[in-house]
Amino acid sequence: MADAIPMVEVRRGPFAESVHRGHAVICDASGAIRAAWGDPDAVILPRSSCKMLQALPLVESGAAAELGSEELALACASHQGAEMHVSRVARWLSDLGLGERDLRCGAQVPDDRAERGRLREGLEAPCQLHNNCSGKHAGFLMLNRHLRGDSEYVAPDHPVQKAARAAFEEMTGAESPGYGIDGCAAPNFATTMRGLASAMARMANPAGLGATRQAAAERLVAAMVSHPLLVAGEGRACSELMAAAGGSVAVKTGAEGVFAAIWPEKGLGLAIKIEDGTTRASECAVAALLTRLGAVKAADPRVSRRTAPVITNRRGVAVGEIGPAPALWENGAPL
Amino acid sequence: MADAIPMVEVRRGPFAESVHRGHAVICDASGAIRAAWGDPDAVILPRSSCKMLQALPLVESGAAAELGSEELALACASHQGAEMHVSRVARWLSDLGLGERDLRCGAQVPDDRAERGRLREGLEAPCQLHNNCSGKHAGFLMLNRHLRGDSEYVAPDHPVQKAARAAFEEMTGAESPGYGIDGCAAPNFATTMRGLASAMARMANPAGLGATRQAAAERLVAAMVSHPLLVAGEGRACSELMAAAGGSVAVKTGAEGVFAAIWPEKGLGLAIKIEDGTTRASECAVAALLTRLGAVKAADPRVSRRTAPVITNRRGVAVGEIGPAPALWENGAPL
Repeated sequence: MADAIPMVEVRRGPFAESVHRGHAVICDASGAIRAAWGDPDAVILPRSSCKMLQALPLVESGAAAELGSEELALACASHQGAEMHVSRVARWLSDLGLGERDLRCGAQVPDDRAERGRLREGLEAPCQLHNNCSGKHAGFLMLNRHLRGDSEYVAPDHPVQKAARAAFEEMTGAESPGYGIDGCAAPNFATTMRGLASAMARMANPAGLGATRQAAAERLVAAMVSHPLLVAGEGRACSELMAAAGGSVAVKTGAEGVFAAIWPEKGLGLAIKIEDGTTRASECAVAALLTRLGAVKAADPRVSRRTAPVITNRRGVAVGEIGPAPALWENGAPL
Repeated sequence: MADAIPMVEVRRGPFAESVHRGHAVICDASGAIRAAWGDPDAVILPRSSCKMLQALPLVESGAAAELGSEELALACASHQGAEMHVSRVARWLSDLGLGERDLRCGAQVPDDRAERGRLREGLEAPCQLHNNCSGKHAGFLMLNRHLRGDSEYVAPDHPVQKAARAAFEEMTGAESPGYGIDGCAAPNFATTMRGLASAMARMANPAGLGATRQAAAERLVAAMVSHPLLVAGEGRACSELMAAAGGSVAVKTGAEGVFAAIWPEKGLGLAIKIEDGTTRASECAVAALLTRLGAVKAADPRVSRRTAPVITNRRGVAVGEIGPAPALWENGAPL
């Protein structure tokens, strides 16, 4: 079992003041490892990086036959609760004959500045629609209506979650060793780094997975890359990196330092986990690896503000920077 | 060279979802290592954890002969810009015939909620007095008046910074390998983990350092433990852990995962660095080690909210917790 490797450094003056270690794996749809840093067998909770896997039963069941690509993008999203996200999820629920009260994700203060300001001015409490997972939960509710399950659709033994687990295990290629409860109250199934990368590769190249799954995977990936702002929001890493890649790569973050990426034209999937769970490192690592892979350009500011963010002091003077550690270039198989 | 060891785990369901590695060293005033986790020779930037060392020349020079213990506590503080901090630093500067404009630390939005609300309501911009280092800088300005240096007292070759470096190197017991510029624009000198722990032990037991340094060290440590709220603020780790220790230990944090502690009755100094720079981990590690040392009680909520914070989902249900990794108990010499 390999150890996590230094992936991102925080430099100040001549010193690497802090170091973030992690694992990264690139697989193809056969599950073969094409490159690896750290331990491909490390067990992780993918958190929100696997929302596109959780959405597969929604599409495959036929429940979402009439659903638009915006809603499918929201089903895969960790959005920041902006008006564009909240209004679409509200309308989707309304079309189902349901409402905010039917969600089981809990309320969340939105990350979106404008929406936060609107709530503050109106003395309005944030609601479950603002939860970054409200699109995933709208998808769960839509599948639940189709499956005729009871209202507590986040219970691990509920038909909705059993369907999500089955799809997750088929796509990762292994039985999940268990689950933790996610911030949105749904179970989040564990897998290995290799399992997550393989699942992303199968989303990228679903040709061998049967017609139903192939169609579902293609529809979900197309929805994500068509609506990058719905998948996250203004200024967010997933949205900006998808835009920087010109729609060629679907990028999805998960809490505690996870990123997943789907690259259809190469048939590859990427999984990243920063061991300590820090976002500044996971965003730097995914932008750096997408650069190394040739999916985005190093000079693109949407990329460089993540691969080489400058640290300033409180007088606005540059005193350091964050950047990929040498091992992120030196280790791993050639790509 | 030993590697950083797992010090803090973030658990969700049955999984250690994230792990924070780090170094910790306990020294006595001779510089001898009494316990160590990770690498005692690791070079770190101590950041604000060494403010009491930077304040030594202020006291030893005689510049602070008339200064009260509240101001000395503020000279060692990373405060949160509350009214109690800002008003005292303003009065101190005024007593020197100086003002906010003479500071060189830069403005900072205060962490204190009440002061932030006051600024927002009054459409008032945060100023340099709100900078968490404004007390250290008031101390620099007081020393500077004594030394008759020019106004740019944060320049690394300025007499104020030369004096701070000399005291730092004497207390750590070694020449500093260099510096980075801190968030407040002052140079922050590097040392080893062992160097920082030794310096803290010498603050704890300064008997062999000559009468002037002994008096200065004792005055600064007494000021810190007498005014824990001035050293940080309401709800902050340094303030609460000092209060939990009943004034027997001085505790000081530094950015990027650093903690230092001074324990006069045992003559010991403690230094902690979380490799990835994360506060949730450094606070857990310092509270856990102070518990293991017997300086604070595990059941004290001011301690347990750092050694065992519960992670809840957005419906308020406990889904995980943060806690010390087994290695923090298993490794290191017996204490």
